[in-house]
Amino acid sequence: MSFNEKLKLAWKKNNSLVCVGLDPDLSRLPAGLAPQRESIFEFNKAIIDATHDLVCAYKPQIAYFSACSAEEQLEQTIRYIKTNYPDIPVILDSKRGDIGSTAQQYAVEAFERYQADAVTINPYMGVDSAEPFLTYQDRGVILLCRTSNSGASDIQDLVVNGSPLYEKVADLVANQWNKHNNCLLVVGATWPEQMAKIRSIVGDMAFLVPGAGAQGGDVEQLVKAGKTEDGTGLIVNSSRGILYASSGRDFAEAARNETLKLRDLINQFR
Amino acid sequence: MSFNEKLKLAWKKNNSLVCVGLDPDLSRLPAGLAPQRESIFEFNKAIIDATHDLVCAYKPQIAYFSACSAEEQLEQTIRYIKTNYPDIPVILDSKRGDIGSTAQQYAVEAFERYQADAVTINPYMGVDSAEPFLTYQDRGVILLCRTSNSGASDIQDLVVNGSPLYEKVADLVANQWNKHNNCLLVVGATWPEQMAKIRSIVGDMAFLVPGAGAQGGDVEQLVKAGKTEDGTGLIVNSSRGILYASSGRDFAEAARNETLKLRDLINQFR
Repeated sequence: MSFNEKLKLAWKKNNSLVCVGLDPDLSRLPAGLAPQRESIFEFNKAIIDATHDLVCAYKPQIAYFSACSAEEQLEQTIRYIKTNYPDIPVILDSKRGDIGSTAQQYAVEAFERYQADAVTINPYMGVDSAEPFLTYQDRGVILLCRTSNSGASDIQDLVVNGSPLYEKVADLVANQWNKHNNCLLVVGATWPEQMAKIRSIVGDMAFLVPGAGAQGGDVEQLVKAGKTEDGTGLIVNSSRGILYASSGRDFAEAARNETLKLRDLINQFR
Repeated sequence: MSFNEKLKLAWKKNNSLVCVGLDPDLSRLPAGLAPQRESIFEFNKAIIDATHDLVCAYKPQIAYFSACSAEEQLEQTIRYIKTNYPDIPVILDSKRGDIGSTAQQYAVEAFERYQADAVTINPYMGVDSAEPFLTYQDRGVILLCRTSNSGASDIQDLVVNGSPLYEKVADLVANQWNKHNNCLLVVGATWPEQMAKIRSIVGDMAFLVPGAGAQGGDVEQLVKAGKTEDGTGLIVNSSRGILYASSGRDFAEAARNETLKLRDLINQFR
């Protein structure tokens, strides 16, 4: 089954466009979990068990694992999802990008070592840097287009032939890089106008939308700007807003409540 | 000591602009080394011992380690260089780039976990994605500008206000992002004309130059295009051309010979 097919089934099954981002920050682990890498899997497992029926995807952010030598905990986390909740796709957020021979190694990292269903990558180096990922036709390749951070404008808004660079990236991905129909785009929740424009360029291509939680993106605006005609097309990620909803022993329950709130809020505007 | 000072001393000490890229590909390890991750450190150590007096830097490419779960071998390799050849800077080639809070984790990965002297990063997400790296003022931050691969032109050549995007990136880095004087740029050996233009934009800022070896960049052209007035300014990387110069048990000696040849060829044109 392709990533896009798996995603569609998950949207439907859980009636949800919410993705929970797994960014386990040792300095923010809740009460009862020691701030050490051995706690990471336990934390992730509790979050996953509490939210699996409310989400369309999980998105572990590899940086939080790499910074504290927790590759094993990342492997364990993904294996846990795939074993216990096989209908929920896993997006490895790693934003890799390199020349072809090196990108090949990164594709092995994401798709073979970690067994991710999809991976985020950076388009700056061009199509040959994406190709080793794209050839895994059953996996999703999610290219940065308009990111959620404030500095996104520094490069992405530079004007190319009368349009901002991110629109050119959207156009290239949709019309040249998407031969196997496995491309998606990262479009930040914080930029609803830009999102609407990108939607008009790329048709029904799904967007991974970071920035809806702690980063403050407005849910009504983003859903209206980004949804496709059938009310899907979006993977709306929240990480910190869900993971750290409570710093007490009730963190998993609090995470469930936040996920439910976000799901229902999104569903109002689909 | 800052990265740039350390680099200047290494250029001088070994009279060399050559950087050996450590891309340990298990499928290409020479005779006598089993194709398994336990061989990686042994391979790197032999290459390093054979070339340490001929180089200005080593550049491990993290993808080759991550693909085969060899993080420990990467740590060991960098520790070996820093213990035995402390004058030679280590550049971690990882091309990271993410929003600030995540970039902070990647900075910890590069500079604290792996203790790299410098790291490569991708500028597409803007200055706030670079900031967590830039605040390590004694480390080098090497931003992708014009990469060596054929697809580099897809995005990097798009015309912004009459100039290609990579020139705009060079200008932004030199005039806005380089407050702590710790920025460098990646400029591929395969594009000498573009390199000359970038040199004219950024003054004496050092370039990491991939593509001189297996990728076929012309050494005379690149050195003339990229050197600074004092005949330095370049970190000319060769990975596969040196590492796999021989597939026999004489691989380290062959690597030394290739490094020496490249060093002397470069020095003819400085």
